[in-house]
Amino acid sequence: MPDHEEATASDPLLGRIDEQDRAAATRQRRRKVILATFASAVVLLSAFTVAGILFTKKASNNGGKPNVILMISDGFGPASETLARNYYQYTHDVPAGTQLPLDTILVGASRTRSSDSFVTDSAAGATAFACGIKTLNGAIAVSPGLKPCGTVLEAAKEQGFLTGMVVTSRITHGKRSDAHLITIETLGLRQANLATPACFASHANSRVLEDDIALHEIGNYTLGRRVDLMFGGGSCFFKPNSEAGSCRSDNIDAYAMAKDIGWHVASDDRTLFDALDPASVSLPLLNLFSGDHMAYEIDRDEKSEPSLKEMALKALDILTLSEKKSKGFFLMIEGSRIDMAAHNNDPATHVREILAYQQTIEAVKKFVDENPGTIMISVSDHETGGLSVGRQLDPNQYPVYNWNPDALTRVQRSTESIAPLLIAHDHRTLRDYIAKTVFPTWLDIHNATTAEIASVVDLATATDSDRQIERLSALLGELSSRRAGLGWATQGHSAVDVNLYAYGHNADQLRGNHENTEIGDFIIRHMGLDVGAITTKLTRDPPNDLAALKAPSTRRGDFQVKHYHSHSK
Amino acid sequence: MPDHEEATASDPLLGRIDEQDRAAATRQRRRKVILATFASAVVLLSAFTVAGILFTKKASNNGGKPNVILMISDGFGPASETLARNYYQYTHDVPAGTQLPLDTILVGASRTRSSDSFVTDSAAGATAFACGIKTLNGAIAVSPGLKPCGTVLEAAKEQGFLTGMVVTSRITHGKRSDAHLITIETLGLRQANLATPACFASHANSRVLEDDIALHEIGNYTLGRRVDLMFGGGSCFFKPNSEAGSCRSDNIDAYAMAKDIGWHVASDDRTLFDALDPASVSLPLLNLFSGDHMAYEIDRDEKSEPSLKEMALKALDILTLSEKKSKGFFLMIEGSRIDMAAHNNDPATHVREILAYQQTIEAVKKFVDENPGTIMISVSDHETGGLSVGRQLDPNQYPVYNWNPDALTRVQRSTESIAPLLIAHDHRTLRDYIAKTVFPTWLDIHNATTAEIASVVDLATATDSDRQIERLSALLGELSSRRAGLGWATQGHSAVDVNLYAYGHNADQLRGNHENTEIGDFIIRHMGLDVGAITTKLTRDPPNDLAALKAPSTRRGDFQVKHYHSHSK
Repeated sequence: MPDHEEATASDPLLGRIDEQDRAAATRQRRRKVILATFASAVVLLSAFTVAGILFTKKASNNGGKPNVILMISDGFGPASETLARNYYQYTHDVPAGTQLPLDTILVGASRTRSSDSFVTDSAAGATAFACGIKTLNGAIAVSPGLKPCGTVLEAAKEQGFLTGMVVTSRITHGKRSDAHLITIETLGLRQANLATPACFASHANSRVLEDDIALHEIGNYTLGRRVDLMFGGGSCFFKPNSEAGSCRSDNIDAYAMAKDIGWHVASDDRTLFDALDPASVSLPLLNLFSGDHMAYEIDRDEKSEPSLKEMALKALDILTLSEKKSKGFFLMIEGSRIDMAAHNNDPATHVREILAYQQTIEAVKKFVDENPGTIMISVSDHETGGLSVGRQLDPNQYPVYNWNPDALTRVQRSTESIAPLLIAHDHRTLRDYIAKTVFPTWLDIHNATTAEIASVVDLATATDSDRQIERLSALLGELSSRRAGLGWATQGHSAVDVNLYAYGHNADQLRGNHENTEIGDFIIRHMGLDVGAITTKLTRDPPNDLAALKAPSTRRGDFQVKHYHSHSK
Repeated sequence: MPDHEEATASDPLLGRIDEQDRAAATRQRRRKVILATFASAVVLLSAFTVAGILFTKKASNNGGKPNVILMISDGFGPASETLARNYYQYTHDVPAGTQLPLDTILVGASRTRSSDSFVTDSAAGATAFACGIKTLNGAIAVSPGLKPCGTVLEAAKEQGFLTGMVVTSRITHGKRSDAHLITIETLGLRQANLATPACFASHANSRVLEDDIALHEIGNYTLGRRVDLMFGGGSCFFKPNSEAGSCRSDNIDAYAMAKDIGWHVASDDRTLFDALDPASVSLPLLNLFSGDHMAYEIDRDEKSEPSLKEMALKALDILTLSEKKSKGFFLMIEGSRIDMAAHNNDPATHVREILAYQQTIEAVKKFVDENPGTIMISVSDHETGGLSVGRQLDPNQYPVYNWNPDALTRVQRSTESIAPLLIAHDHRTLRDYIAKTVFPTWLDIHNATTAEIASVVDLATATDSDRQIERLSALLGELSSRRAGLGWATQGHSAVDVNLYAYGHNADQLRGNHENTEIGDFIIRHMGLDVGAITTKLTRDPPNDLAALKAPSTRRGDFQVKHYHSHSK
């Protein structure tokens, strides 16, 4: 238990904000009774008890601004934490009791189901944190009744807080990462359609979506600019399609538009980032380090891209120095690609993303120590991959009770970075390339069977393969996973509760097992936000694209479990 | 957060026993400083503050006996809790926020690795709780240096507490359940050999082991009788092999021996159990309800076997009424077969075992409410099966974000109960039996493919199959799991941290992420036990079988991870 935790945990005078807290109510009632009875007994108190109270009072009144740092470890389940800890213990040769930074601040778990499925998608998972409501899979910051809901980021900005987003995905990413979702409820219904399995793989539509997201994020939407600072990847959606490195479908120059709005813009390298003086920089600030997602930690060239920890610390420095006249800040920091590595069933990449996230946690914890009033929450929107730390390869092989981190330590590249190289490679020499370079050098696989090599060749050379890169990435990930003794049940999400971590002011209020919406509720209360006012504004004056679209009729209504019947027989 | 939790959480005067708790130490130092400064300020205190303190003092001094109810959900991981909650919500048609009893008392997680493996086996997992030490896989209540260690149950009895064990496995079970392990450290090294994969499946040796365990449990070992109450299965090891229903290899009548020692004995039905008057029964009491393990909940005939909840409540009644002259009690209650269903990858059986365990939790929580000083801890020794709540059946099938509890609701039998029937069935009509009875009636499978039926026929009729029942059980479990959208990575254990639940006095001290040994440490401190005295006794005067045996040399020493290298290439 961290020191800070204990300090707040043992404070009877601490205001509790949970309306469900019957214990607090009971305590208050009993206090009133005792008050009447013992009002004359003041002088009998021992000095020791007095001292205890005074200290306790001090702890509850720490006087800082109610900053919220919401850290999202996308696609990170309970097994991911064990995997990373075991890997760390093994590679650092440290004893069993050694903890990772997150281990020291575990407070409970978050239940992730959406309003219509036991397995949430990213949209419903993010809406729970952003608006504090359960909604349908595919619904981005809109209610199950398809009304837009105000988000914590929007409300924070409205009420005089600074806001920021730091991610490792494209900052515009609308597919697997939830980084941007908090600000783009206006796109809810279009994304709702995209999020169904059939439309999910439609890259043309998806690209059009991200075209819009880029514009919304810089402030070109109903509510105007809501974000003060953005670090991440995805510059290609900010460049007109007449320019090299663009992936827009139109000729809009979103960077130029951003500058007109007042943004300080830097792109595609870390030159400005490194030169930034937090004391003199002015907001809003947009710095994207790559056209697409930022590199996985395992692939990252630190000369061109900063780490998540570097981005987080820089963002915190800037927000802290800029907030003098503000009420504090809301900063979302996402380890976006923990999820993507899990979608690829790529264990070496997954574990290194997690360790980079843990380093960020450690750094942010120090910030919290130095800034009373601040709370850091770390949580996942869902688990990805159905990861098992332990695996039986054959029903005839009796379970062996270990798993083998050593199989991951010398892996040099993400499978996602390898897959396109295989597909582009000369088919005539592909087998040799796999057997002599890809397996031994990059994946540390030295005992591949003929069948394993053939399976990779077949998929890499298939001409009619749907989702070829994703499937090839996952096939390579599977070969690593077999050697490590790790299992994956899916390339998608699973339903398992995710761990909830919190550190700082009022962190004790997040103890226990919570619905994911309660994390949104907590932020709303901690910062004193009025998301209802934003909802009212959005409902009264809906953005054009929201008014123009209609949801499919099967999506209407509240909790839907009927579809669970359709797969049974 | 349950009321009780809040009450203890907000108590600054509560003694903290965790030596690692730097916060408490800091608080105390600060209190001393403030003490000197403010000693004269007593009269300034408001009456309200006084009242708060007096209430707080009351909460910290609840005056009951320091009973410990250690509930073990064997083989139950984080995904198992989500699975059961989703299943409950679905079958009861209740909204997303509905919690299971365990959800309301989540305090953290337990890290399960043993001293020589990231994936623990049952022996090392149970030793962590029993002795508070990490040991080697296969080592039952012996240290990594192969010295016996005193257990909490042994020490509790030594110091005037009552002790009990309630399980649903054979009470003698030495294979997958840890029920008995707490009392049989003398068998440590023999079991250590058995726990290696090669010997694990040796049923002959295993049976000899359980012969001895039965005698030890009733008190025929170095320390004499340590247990006051036992409910569970496994009467066959208490009957001489000259008698029907015996599975002993010798002619010892352990029941007769138990009666000589003073045990009240009842066997093989619930007649005496139902007639027991807790107010008049005298200890020690041994009531076994079945020759083998008790039936899975899904198979249970309630006329002949009580539920885990019924056994737990009866045990609590008896111990409470009997403890008037004692210091309290230590009671271990195990949902033993949650694990076995997971070993069989049998989801319908697994989920119903869990729900029976949850009902027991709910009942025991009420007991804790009525008995101040008592704490209930619920934890697993490890996860089993590498369960994923969500699954992709085919790499070409894009992930569908749901799973389907409906596929489990009408399953009528455990796959373990079906497997022997298939093996014994007339081979000529086996296919029809599977297609017309086993699949549609018992497993609710109506769309089996020809290949699926053939795979079952092949395994059931194989003549040279090792572990045929286990494998056939798991094959049937796999067919259910595919239809439910659930994944299993192994028939063995996995490394994932398991959830830690606690309720009652000092439950807040278990908050956070803990090494499993810290749960043993907590029990030792909560009850004020001197396990060292037991260790000294056992080390000075080792039992015969401990002295006679030597461990394999590769098992010596402390933390061993060298074996992780052997599977890499």
